[in-house]
Amino acid sequence: MDLQARRNADPQHWNLATSIRVLAMDAVQAANSGHPGMPMGMADVATVLFRNHLKFDASAPNWFDRDRFILSAGHGSMLLYALLYLTGYEQMTLEQIKNFRQWGSITAGHPEYGHAEGIETTTGPLGQGIATSVGFAIAEEAMRAEFGEALCDHRTWVIAGDGCLMEGISQEAIALAGAQKLGRLIVLWDNNDITIDGAVSLSDRTDQRARFEASGWRVLSCDGHDAADIDRALSAAKDSDGRPTLVDCKTVIGYGSEKKQGTSGAHGSPLGDEEIAATRRHYGWDHAEFIIPDDILSDWREIGRRGAEARQGWNDRVDGLEADKRDEFARRISGESNGKLGPAIAALKEQALAGQHKVATRKASEMVLEVINPALPEMFGGSADLTGSNNTKTADLGIFDVQNRAGRYIHYGIREHGMAAAMNGIFLHGGFRPYGGTFLTFTDYARGAMRLSALMGIATIYVMTHDSIGLGEDGPTHQPIEHLALCRATPNTMVLRPCDLIETAEAWEIALDSEDAPSVMALSRQNLPLLREEAGENLSAKGAYVMREASAAPKVILMATGSEVEIAVNAREILEAAGIPTRVLSVPCMELLREQDAAYRETLLPADTVRVAVEAGVRQGWDWLLMGERGSDTRAGFVGMDGFGASAPAPKLYEEFGITPDAVAETAKALL
Amino acid sequence: MDLQARRNADPQHWNLATSIRVLAMDAVQAANSGHPGMPMGMADVATVLFRNHLKFDASAPNWFDRDRFILSAGHGSMLLYALLYLTGYEQMTLEQIKNFRQWGSITAGHPEYGHAEGIETTTGPLGQGIATSVGFAIAEEAMRAEFGEALCDHRTWVIAGDGCLMEGISQEAIALAGAQKLGRLIVLWDNNDITIDGAVSLSDRTDQRARFEASGWRVLSCDGHDAADIDRALSAAKDSDGRPTLVDCKTVIGYGSEKKQGTSGAHGSPLGDEEIAATRRHYGWDHAEFIIPDDILSDWREIGRRGAEARQGWNDRVDGLEADKRDEFARRISGESNGKLGPAIAALKEQALAGQHKVATRKASEMVLEVINPALPEMFGGSADLTGSNNTKTADLGIFDVQNRAGRYIHYGIREHGMAAAMNGIFLHGGFRPYGGTFLTFTDYARGAMRLSALMGIATIYVMTHDSIGLGEDGPTHQPIEHLALCRATPNTMVLRPCDLIETAEAWEIALDSEDAPSVMALSRQNLPLLREEAGENLSAKGAYVMREASAAPKVILMATGSEVEIAVNAREILEAAGIPTRVLSVPCMELLREQDAAYRETLLPADTVRVAVEAGVRQGWDWLLMGERGSDTRAGFVGMDGFGASAPAPKLYEEFGITPDAVAETAKALL
Repeated sequence: MDLQARRNADPQHWNLATSIRVLAMDAVQAANSGHPGMPMGMADVATVLFRNHLKFDASAPNWFDRDRFILSAGHGSMLLYALLYLTGYEQMTLEQIKNFRQWGSITAGHPEYGHAEGIETTTGPLGQGIATSVGFAIAEEAMRAEFGEALCDHRTWVIAGDGCLMEGISQEAIALAGAQKLGRLIVLWDNNDITIDGAVSLSDRTDQRARFEASGWRVLSCDGHDAADIDRALSAAKDSDGRPTLVDCKTVIGYGSEKKQGTSGAHGSPLGDEEIAATRRHYGWDHAEFIIPDDILSDWREIGRRGAEARQGWNDRVDGLEADKRDEFARRISGESNGKLGPAIAALKEQALAGQHKVATRKASEMVLEVINPALPEMFGGSADLTGSNNTKTADLGIFDVQNRAGRYIHYGIREHGMAAAMNGIFLHGGFRPYGGTFLTFTDYARGAMRLSALMGIATIYVMTHDSIGLGEDGPTHQPIEHLALCRATPNTMVLRPCDLIETAEAWEIALDSEDAPSVMALSRQNLPLLREEAGENLSAKGAYVMREASAAPKVILMATGSEVEIAVNAREILEAAGIPTRVLSVPCMELLREQDAAYRETLLPADTVRVAVEAGVRQGWDWLLMGERGSDTRAGFVGMDGFGASAPAPKLYEEFGITPDAVAETAKALL
Repeated sequence: MDLQARRNADPQHWNLATSIRVLAMDAVQAANSGHPGMPMGMADVATVLFRNHLKFDASAPNWFDRDRFILSAGHGSMLLYALLYLTGYEQMTLEQIKNFRQWGSITAGHPEYGHAEGIETTTGPLGQGIATSVGFAIAEEAMRAEFGEALCDHRTWVIAGDGCLMEGISQEAIALAGAQKLGRLIVLWDNNDITIDGAVSLSDRTDQRARFEASGWRVLSCDGHDAADIDRALSAAKDSDGRPTLVDCKTVIGYGSEKKQGTSGAHGSPLGDEEIAATRRHYGWDHAEFIIPDDILSDWREIGRRGAEARQGWNDRVDGLEADKRDEFARRISGESNGKLGPAIAALKEQALAGQHKVATRKASEMVLEVINPALPEMFGGSADLTGSNNTKTADLGIFDVQNRAGRYIHYGIREHGMAAAMNGIFLHGGFRPYGGTFLTFTDYARGAMRLSALMGIATIYVMTHDSIGLGEDGPTHQPIEHLALCRATPNTMVLRPCDLIETAEAWEIALDSEDAPSVMALSRQNLPLLREEAGENLSAKGAYVMREASAAPKVILMATGSEVEIAVNAREILEAAGIPTRVLSVPCMELLREQDAAYRETLLPADTVRVAVEAGVRQGWDWLLMGERGSDTRAGFVGMDGFGASAPAPKLYEEFGITPDAVAETAKALL
């Protein structure tokens, strides 16, 4: 069907959808950079979605019971920005659209969470949106199970392109969603047959419909440029049979650009003034750039108010709740603390001091969770098929699955990346504090989503056990060496490596108190003694502190984290026995140490001392503490790893790689 | 069918397979750690494969035309070690089996490439084996196209478990293999319904058969404990219809252990002496631990010699080649240089000096490839759907696809992780030098396989463009900040960040001269001037060198990489104009600088100088150069990033984030 016929078939729809297309063309042209093809191709689908199906109220972007709309194909950001502007989200002004991709604007090249209301999650790295949406849908089911459909009755809609579906993370996501029968998750596939390099067939011949069905999805389809057909398909999608739904939307990328539509030329660069003018003519759109006629804008604004009544109904239902339930619901969706964390942690620390447990910090973490999970109903745990190794499951948490949406522990499967993205979605949805486990070395698999936690500034908690060669026989593929360094190199990420049960409790307190940064908890496989001698203040919150003081003014400062603090404490005994006053610092979190004032660090690390750091990983990341912040005449050494590990029992590995009290003491002596 | 009936049905097969099972049980028990369940479950399939189908000669493990056998489920390493021992691979002695998972043994917890012949690739991180195998199969097709079936006529066999198939990378791998119709790739799926957490159904309800078919695979099946049925399926698998083949092998994990078979209890820990004794009885196997009776071992050794005749035939065919072709074939499969790289690079550098090109280093990289790809027929390029952005395709390379196996450029699709693993496989197969491109930030997606390149010590080349905020408007999701640091933190990885065309040529020379470490080439999107003033020696090979000398004894040393060297050179002008003698070092490769002797570094970085490093990334990784190796009184500064980037034109970003000549000069002045 040609454009003229489309226009005549439904002029109002045509004008609404064309508003999106011209804004996308114009903004990309003005920025001289961006992706017009996708918004132009998916404008019809998005228009029908927002006009007839998506539950939202533009005047209340954060209304809890709204449908979530996630643009997994984040390069098509102008589609989202145009929709937010047209429907009347306050922050998304026409000025912002005109400043697309410019410094200080909220209209970044890819949608950035926190830049504007209505951006539910950051997308752009392909596949992240669809994988994060699984977390939204999980959280929604769990909240509904807890608070009822009257308070939680929404859906998650996703637009995904071929790029999203080719990324491996998409398989993890769809298999998880299919297994969990997340029937309110609806993915609209922008099936345009084009990728950057050219036709999809250059690299893919997957029958996506069959692939989704194989993973337990229902598949519908529509002509992505026929409003009535789209409407039929989206109506059917809402009528779930219990499975998540893929809607195969057959579209033309760059729809309406005679020269570029249906080609990769429409994907990632401006169409050019001439082609934009020609395309406007094809559209029958004779308005100047960035101009949306009042009547069309008015229709769009009306769409933006469509959900007001539903929202009022929801408000009334919330108001009608018993006070206790209403307060708890309000607390949960706001993410506020119930005040029970601090006392629970304090009590556990006191017990720990009395008990003198020698346990692996992964086990210590389980002991902490046994205390806080019952106190914090928002805790939502899981593991990527290493439950017994990560010690992430506590007795009170039921299993979240198709039969039991009230469960608070989920088997994510062998899907580290999918788990990380799903946890981001659970956090972003609201109502829960997700944590999930795998081995620290498999940070490598999850990094794409872990970086987004940091970039979005959300407090997802990664429980990363088996955090060094101390895992022993599994060998170098499983032994993290560089992973502490790479997590520390990542902006806005807290890397917590506790040395005993008390520090582990403190680490959990820090991670759960965080509102704007994810935490990576690095936990040992091997048992570690209780080293802390006091349980009062959360000393870990300073990032580093004196674990053992020197017998006199220190000549040597030993620094260590996690399982190596014990080694440093034992090295101190050797040095003190040799008459060398030696202080031991535990450094559970470098990022928090950086936040302290310089004076605190100077009290920990006085000048004219020998400094030796001990960590069973690479040195990178330690030099700022070893060398002094402005350089100094400090003599410094590092005892750790400078290559990959090996397969052998852990004590043997520590000995062979020279991470021992003797080696630490010798290193210090050599520097004196 | 019970064990007795199995045994009676084919006693010889039973004894062969049981040899594997008991060795696995015994070795895991002796190590008190490991995974007996998988070898016990897949012993029948592996026995039939090695006995009747796999083309190999245990006396010549590196015979080029052997079938490749890849144990993707690497935790089942004892299956592989047992097979290598039983069939008579010289290195794999019984002593090594007894020392499973011990220090210094070649029998690591997971199979480690380079530890023993017969280990084709390192596996353990799930999904890597199946994804690497796609590279083996690609290289095989390409070599066959070039040298003919008489010289290259083998297959790639893979054993993969549910863990491999749940990892996202598996989807990237199977979709790529399906699209490329890699008909000689056969995956044997250990379909045992069990993962670590319990039943597969806890987290997955995927119809794997339908999923593989959707990606263009043929699916066969067999009873994984019925030798005749396995044989039938493997025979059928070899009779390819052009598609890759999945063989669904229904198995029982821990087969024969009455207490643990069919449960996750058989997966990852020793069965215990009592259960081992009981299982031996069930097997009807009354030999002591680690003892394989002579007659059975003799049968196995005969299997190990089965391929000798085929190998002799191949040797004869190679000997019968014309000398030129034989020499080139021998060179290619040995990985030797043809001597053309150095002269090609030298000529290009001279031209560059004359031409004074101002080009992005990604474009410079293309200019280098235009010269070396025609000279080095082993070059095999590709990109994860960013061909035009990564500048990885040169005119002479045809496209490798179903119609043209002689092509040397492959569209990997939007599959960074799958690409990296496939490149590892192409390298390991032999015959080609793979390189492939994506954006540097998507290191995050590919890290699992990139780490294996480093761990295996193979020289895969990663062409990572858009290497900083200099990519501009795409914004923080696409701007690498921590990625140089994390690549540098990874052991045995060369991170090359050239500053102009001449350094880019030198970087390619270094990467291609490397035999035992992967290279990460970090290349700019934005144009950069030619800074080098001489083209003779490969100065980049020293890791760092003086790019601009100070006008007198230097008071300030500026250090920079890539696009920031220009900034440092301009900052030097400001400082020199202010009467401050300033030296500029280019640091294209820190790892190579570390390999120089300390005296060289001291000549570059004399004491009592102010040092300022400039890099549009995090500081982490720079302190060893800023502070001095043993600490010093050097005053040091860093001009770079300490948080995520933003969406705006690149020059604006450099200005706003303060990475400018003025800022560098001011930093230096403040330290003087």
